[in-house]
Amino acid sequence: MTEQTNSSAIDQLLSERIKSTPPSFVRSILKVAVDPEIISFAGGLPNPVSFPQEELLTSMERIVKTYGDKVFQYSVTAGIPELRRLLAQRYSQRYGVNLTEENILITTGSQQALDLISKVLLNDNDGIIVEKPSYLGALQAFSQYHPTFYPVNLTKDGLDLNQLEEALTHENIKFVYAIPDFQNPTGLTYSAENRKKVGEILQKHNIVLVEDDPYGDLRFRGERLPYIGLGKHPNSIVLGTFSKTVTPGMRIGFIVSENKELLKNISISKEASDLHTNVFSQYLIYDYLSNNDVDAHINDIKNLYEDQAQAMLNAMAEYFPDTVSYTKPDGGMFIWATLPEGVSALELFPKALEKKVAFVPGDPFYVNQKNVNTMRLNYTNADSTTIKEGIRRLGELLKEL
Amino acid sequence: MTEQTNSSAIDQLLSERIKSTPPSFVRSILKVAVDPEIISFAGGLPNPVSFPQEELLTSMERIVKTYGDKVFQYSVTAGIPELRRLLAQRYSQRYGVNLTEENILITTGSQQALDLISKVLLNDNDGIIVEKPSYLGALQAFSQYHPTFYPVNLTKDGLDLNQLEEALTHENIKFVYAIPDFQNPTGLTYSAENRKKVGEILQKHNIVLVEDDPYGDLRFRGERLPYIGLGKHPNSIVLGTFSKTVTPGMRIGFIVSENKELLKNISISKEASDLHTNVFSQYLIYDYLSNNDVDAHINDIKNLYEDQAQAMLNAMAEYFPDTVSYTKPDGGMFIWATLPEGVSALELFPKALEKKVAFVPGDPFYVNQKNVNTMRLNYTNADSTTIKEGIRRLGELLKEL
Repeated sequence: MTEQTNSSAIDQLLSERIKSTPPSFVRSILKVAVDPEIISFAGGLPNPVSFPQEELLTSMERIVKTYGDKVFQYSVTAGIPELRRLLAQRYSQRYGVNLTEENILITTGSQQALDLISKVLLNDNDGIIVEKPSYLGALQAFSQYHPTFYPVNLTKDGLDLNQLEEALTHENIKFVYAIPDFQNPTGLTYSAENRKKVGEILQKHNIVLVEDDPYGDLRFRGERLPYIGLGKHPNSIVLGTFSKTVTPGMRIGFIVSENKELLKNISISKEASDLHTNVFSQYLIYDYLSNNDVDAHINDIKNLYEDQAQAMLNAMAEYFPDTVSYTKPDGGMFIWATLPEGVSALELFPKALEKKVAFVPGDPFYVNQKNVNTMRLNYTNADSTTIKEGIRRLGELLKEL
Repeated sequence: MTEQTNSSAIDQLLSERIKSTPPSFVRSILKVAVDPEIISFAGGLPNPVSFPQEELLTSMERIVKTYGDKVFQYSVTAGIPELRRLLAQRYSQRYGVNLTEENILITTGSQQALDLISKVLLNDNDGIIVEKPSYLGALQAFSQYHPTFYPVNLTKDGLDLNQLEEALTHENIKFVYAIPDFQNPTGLTYSAENRKKVGEILQKHNIVLVEDDPYGDLRFRGERLPYIGLGKHPNSIVLGTFSKTVTPGMRIGFIVSENKELLKNISISKEASDLHTNVFSQYLIYDYLSNNDVDAHINDIKNLYEDQAQAMLNAMAEYFPDTVSYTKPDGGMFIWATLPEGVSALELFPKALEKKVAFVPGDPFYVNQKNVNTMRLNYTNADSTTIKEGIRRLGELLKEL
């Protein structure tokens, strides 16, 4: 058999689902940009300084000694009670709610939470309200279940309220997906006022509200704001992760919800999808959190990211033409740049690679839009000098527009 | 809001998919059987002796030292090349095929492979041929995608060939799911002759063949037999795992396939489902395999399981009435007992709990069959003395039938 007949034969067997799931643009890009001379603002990798290697190694030794077999054996689907209790306490204290371990489900990274939530809620053509633009990994996870997307403009204050109310008139809406803090890709944060109003609008509807919060701990400016749903909306879900504050390689995320019925169904789906999340890593994160000054560790990360964000903003002020505007994030990992009307960031991409600098063109963050004039720039995975040089190269290109 | 209105409100939002996904019977049972006095043959847990704790701890220290950041950072979806190359070599040597790392995809346990394969292949009502009985976790994973099941009787030699040909006349069949070695739940192994004939029959059809092989390394009697599909069928998939030979808690499984197009699609689906499998655990398993006499370790496990299987068979010969028949496995973890016609193992279950012994009634291993007269007994997670006592208690009950 030849490679070709083989491939066409398998095409006949593929589900409609996989045919409508795009491979991640970022991951394709990362493969292109392997040249070590390229300065890449395309990824979304945390700086390795955020991995407390020594402390994690100490925790590994301790948990093998303390728990023995248990860290290597099969375990329960919802996650180890120790870690779930710790998270329940943390969220209860911080947000004035009353959670127990039954309100927490451990997931194999937040990406799995996005998959499971879709799996549990979506029939074909059901509606999802997403920010415009939104996180491409979420759009990818949702796409697997054939939804109808209703994008709502994300403004500098948060969701466009008129568009939100309009989108909610569609009867098939199952959930709203939002990233209120330092949004991916824009770096924007919903204001307290916007959160309140969004919450009031959603109260009138029996839908699920998913607030994805991977960066909330990485606020380097301003005060922490309340969630839109937690403690207020009966079907509220908050997604958290240790990927940005401890280690992404361990794939430990979690779902927080006061709706136990919803969590029970997500748990059944998780059981069918991967039985349970790596139990060694759960004990490891639990032990690390219990035996270290995590706040001090997170402060170090925030200080670093604030410096790097500032280095990027300074360089943009110096090297970008006035025709390019951009966001100024209060935390998180990304800046979003808007080029002059009609310019395609995607077409600019190969030219940027020639100049040995990479970014993510805006397209994959939108539902069905091509050649948009926006781009995402990540500042967490390069030092300030490198950032300055990368932005200088990009600025040269932008000045030619 | 009350718990009740909350629950009915969320019911309106659930997908048809989750409504048709049964929670795992085994896991429900395990919750019932928490009484420490109960001797449980219900689980499928490996004996903790199969976890090389000291060696794994040594490997942890070594990989943190050797690879540093890389074991904590985000990684590629298909899995780390080192581990995939090692597996490609092992399978190439053992089965006379020519595999590279591109033929291997690392999954978050084999359960995820079952989920991803369904995701990539099944539209609503597409057909799956499964053994009758089959692994309940697989039936659960597949059920999420609304398939039509075509069960084919599993005999002591393997699949019933006439029923297989009959099932294959249905046009919507996407894949065959088989566990040819020490099947779960029956402990049966397909004969060499049966494998050959099944392979010949499948050659005539453009379908995927999934051979799930979690126990293949745990053969304590007889010679290793070839796979039905690997090296022969263009759409062959073999599933492997380290859960039974190193540690299940780390959730490291893998897919072996010569069909790269199929693997590419599974990889896109995996990216959307959990980005990638825990990278620390991948390096850990790789390092452990590279620096230890794994064959000797697996021999120890096999010797232990052979003793335990024999202890159970001896006790069954002594305590079970002649009206109960049972399989005699050449490896793996399970014995399958058949009670007299008309006896419901499910109805027997609460009586067994009263006698402080547990098993899995056959029902969840069948598609839509209730009150069957079969039960699964696991012998890997109790010592021989305990096994004898548990079978004695069960025998008392069976003699009352």
